[in-house]
Amino acid sequence: MEIIERANEEAIRRMLAGDPVLVDVIPAEEAIPTLGDRMILHAGPPIDWARMCGPMRGAVAGIACFEAWAPNLNVAAEMAASGTFTLHPNHHFDAVGPMTGLTTRGQPVMVVENRAFGNRAYCTINEGLGKVMRFGGNDAEVLDRLCWLRDDFGPAMGAALREMGGIPLKNLVARGLTMGDEMHQRNVACSGLTLRQLAPALARAIQDRDALARCLAFIGGNDQFFLNIAMAMGKAIMDPVRDIEGSSVVTAMARNGTDFGIRVSGTGDTWFTAPVEMPEGLYFPGFSEVDANPDMGDSTIVETVGLGGFAMGAAPAVAGFVGAGLASEAGNFTRTMAEITLAENPEWSIPALDYLGVPTGIDIRLVIETGLAPTINTGIAHKEPGIGQVGAGVVRAPLACFRDALRAFAQTLGVS
Amino acid sequence: MEIIERANEEAIRRMLAGDPVLVDVIPAEEAIPTLGDRMILHAGPPIDWARMCGPMRGAVAGIACFEAWAPNLNVAAEMAASGTFTLHPNHHFDAVGPMTGLTTRGQPVMVVENRAFGNRAYCTINEGLGKVMRFGGNDAEVLDRLCWLRDDFGPAMGAALREMGGIPLKNLVARGLTMGDEMHQRNVACSGLTLRQLAPALARAIQDRDALARCLAFIGGNDQFFLNIAMAMGKAIMDPVRDIEGSSVVTAMARNGTDFGIRVSGTGDTWFTAPVEMPEGLYFPGFSEVDANPDMGDSTIVETVGLGGFAMGAAPAVAGFVGAGLASEAGNFTRTMAEITLAENPEWSIPALDYLGVPTGIDIRLVIETGLAPTINTGIAHKEPGIGQVGAGVVRAPLACFRDALRAFAQTLGVS
Repeated sequence: MEIIERANEEAIRRMLAGDPVLVDVIPAEEAIPTLGDRMILHAGPPIDWARMCGPMRGAVAGIACFEAWAPNLNVAAEMAASGTFTLHPNHHFDAVGPMTGLTTRGQPVMVVENRAFGNRAYCTINEGLGKVMRFGGNDAEVLDRLCWLRDDFGPAMGAALREMGGIPLKNLVARGLTMGDEMHQRNVACSGLTLRQLAPALARAIQDRDALARCLAFIGGNDQFFLNIAMAMGKAIMDPVRDIEGSSVVTAMARNGTDFGIRVSGTGDTWFTAPVEMPEGLYFPGFSEVDANPDMGDSTIVETVGLGGFAMGAAPAVAGFVGAGLASEAGNFTRTMAEITLAENPEWSIPALDYLGVPTGIDIRLVIETGLAPTINTGIAHKEPGIGQVGAGVVRAPLACFRDALRAFAQTLGVS
Repeated sequence: MEIIERANEEAIRRMLAGDPVLVDVIPAEEAIPTLGDRMILHAGPPIDWARMCGPMRGAVAGIACFEAWAPNLNVAAEMAASGTFTLHPNHHFDAVGPMTGLTTRGQPVMVVENRAFGNRAYCTINEGLGKVMRFGGNDAEVLDRLCWLRDDFGPAMGAALREMGGIPLKNLVARGLTMGDEMHQRNVACSGLTLRQLAPALARAIQDRDALARCLAFIGGNDQFFLNIAMAMGKAIMDPVRDIEGSSVVTAMARNGTDFGIRVSGTGDTWFTAPVEMPEGLYFPGFSEVDANPDMGDSTIVETVGLGGFAMGAAPAVAGFVGAGLASEAGNFTRTMAEITLAENPEWSIPALDYLGVPTGIDIRLVIETGLAPTINTGIAHKEPGIGQVGAGVVRAPLACFRDALRAFAQTLGVS
C-alpha cells in the first residue's frame, strides 16, 4: 500500500538523518525530573517483581541499597516484593539500560542529543566487566563502583564533554565499523576512539593526578565502555521515528529477562511481547547453559539501528566470542538481516563487505514474510541474583512479537 | 639441503620467540653512544649525498638546522654536498626510521627491548601526518615540532614507560590485527591501544595539565603514532635472526629512495641492492604520479616480520587507501605472501581469514622460485625537498636483490 511505502520512507529518512552527539553526564534525577524516590526504571517491556528473573531481582535489591532506600539486600528484596518500589521501563523515560538496565535518580547518566531533531536519550555509565550490577551483581564491590561513578567519574566525564562541546557519534561509529566493532558485544575500537577524544579534556577537567589516572585507566580497561554510549545513541536515533502513521518499521526491541518486546512506528508506544528466548553461545569456564538466564536488556536498540548482530560482518572476531560460527562467514549474518530491512546506511559501511551499508529499518512485514527473526549479539547473565556474566551468545527475537505487531498494525490501516 | 632446513628452522624459532617490549624514550646519543657530532643516520642501504633523492636531501638539510649544525637550509645543503656530515644507515646502529628516516644525536628515540634475546632497537617518535620531516618537510613548523618532541613529549613518554614497566607489544599487535590494522599504512587501532595503556602513566608523569592535555591530544590525533613503535619492534625481533649460517631468511628490507636493499641471515650484514621501484597507489588531491618519489624508508621491517602488506587480510580498509583493489579481496595479498614464507605466526592471526597466522620468514629461495616479490604498503613522498606526503600505495620489492642475494648465499654453502 502506498501509505505504508511513504510512511516507511519517512521513517528511514529520519533514521539516516539522525545526528547523535554525546554531550554530557548528569544525575539521572536532572535528566529525568519525573524520576522520583523509590522509583526504578528497568530494561525491556513492563514487568512486575513477581515475574522478574533472578538477576534483575538481584539488581533491584542492590540498587535499593545504593540509593539508601534499604539497609541490606534481604530487606530490599522484601520491600520490592511488597510493592515499595515503583517499576517502569527505561523506554518510557527517554532512557535505555544494558542487561538488568536499572536507572534510578542517584545514578549518573550519559546524555546523547540527536541534533537533527533536538531530542535527548540517556543511559548509565558502563561499569566494566566481571561482577557488575547489569548482570545482577550487588555486593559491596559493585556498590562501591557505582558510588565512584556517581561521585567522581561521572562529574569529571560530564565536565570534559561540556568543555569539548561533545563527541559526535556518527563518524566515530563509522570508524569503529572499520576496526572490527559491531557495537554490541565488541566495542574495543569505539571505546578507544572515545578515550582518545576525551582524554585531553579529562586532563583539563580533573585537578588531582591520581584521580585523573584512575579515570583514564577505567575507560582504557573496559572494552565495553562504549556499549552504553551506543545504546543511548540508538535510542536518540529511534525516538524521532516513533508514531509515523502507516510505518511498519520497528522503533525498539528490548527484553527484561522474562519477556521480549518490540514497538513499531505505526502502532505508537504499544509493546508487543513474547517469552524471551535463551541465547545460544559460549560460556565462561565453570559455567554452562544450565546457569543461564534468558536474554535481557535494552541493548537490542543497537540492532534496531543496524548494528550489533546486524553488523556482524564488520566484526569477524566477535563471531567466535558469541559462538556464531566461522569468522570468515560473519558477513552472512549481515546479508541475511538485509532481507528484513528497508535500507542500507551509506554512512555506516563495512569494508570487508566492499562497503555494504549496515541493514537499516527492520520492517515487520519482511520479518513475517521471510520468517527471519532479527539476530542479536548478547551477553548471558547467571539466572541467580548476585553472580554476574557467565557467557555471550546469539539470540533471535521471538517471531510471535512480530506476528502480533503486524496484526495490530493492519488494524490501524483498517485491514485485517 | 639439510643445513638450510635446520638453519631456517632456527631462524623461524628466533622470530616467533621474540618478546618485544616498548620500554623507554631516551636521547639518541644515549641509546647509540657512537652517534657523534655531524653524524646522520638515514633509511635504507648506504648512500651518499650525490645519489640521494630530493626528500631525503630536504630532510638532511632540515635536521642539520635542528641540530644547529647549520644556520639555514641552503648552508646545510652546501655543507652536506661538501661532505661535512657523516652518513650511515640506521640499520648499522640498531635503529630504523620511516621514509627519510633520519636519526641524529639530539632526537629522542623509542626503545624496544626484545626480552627473549636481550637486544634493543630504536626509532624516533612519529611526527604525525601532514608536513613532516620523514616525508622531506623541513620548515619552521616541522623543526618546532621536533623540538617539542625532544624537550617535552619524549621525556614525558619515557618517564611514563619507565613507571609502568613498559608496554609488551606482541599481544598489543595481536589485538590490532583483530581491529583492522596491518601496522604499516594503518595503525589507528594500535595507536589507540598504546594510548589507553600510556595515558594513566602520562597523567602521573606530567605535572602541568595543559602540557599533559597536549601530549594526550598528540597521540590521540595521530593515527600513525604506532608505526614507529612497530618498526622498532620489527628491528628488535629480526636482529637476533642475523648471521645464522645456512639460513635463507630475509632479516631486513629497506629503501633510501634511490636503492632497495635486503639482508639475508646466511650472508650476514651484506646489503643486496637494486633500484627502488615506484609505488602504485592513490594520490592526495592536487598530486599525481609525476610528483612522486620512488619508495623510501626502513618501514619495510614490518613486512619482514609478517605485517604490513603481508597482513593485508587483517585490514580490508587499507586496501582502498593504498589502491590495492577490492577490500573483500585483501586476504589474497596475505595468501600470496604465504607462498614465499616459511611459517605462519600462531600469535598474530587474522580473524577474517579464520585465524590464519601472518606469513612469517621470507625465504629468498621461494621468492626466486615463485617470482613473487614481497608486497609492501607504503606512503608516497613528493620528489622535491620540503613538500611532504602526496599519497599512499603498494610497491613490490625488486626481484634483482633476491637474485643477487641467492647467488651470494649459494656461495657461502660452496655451491654456485
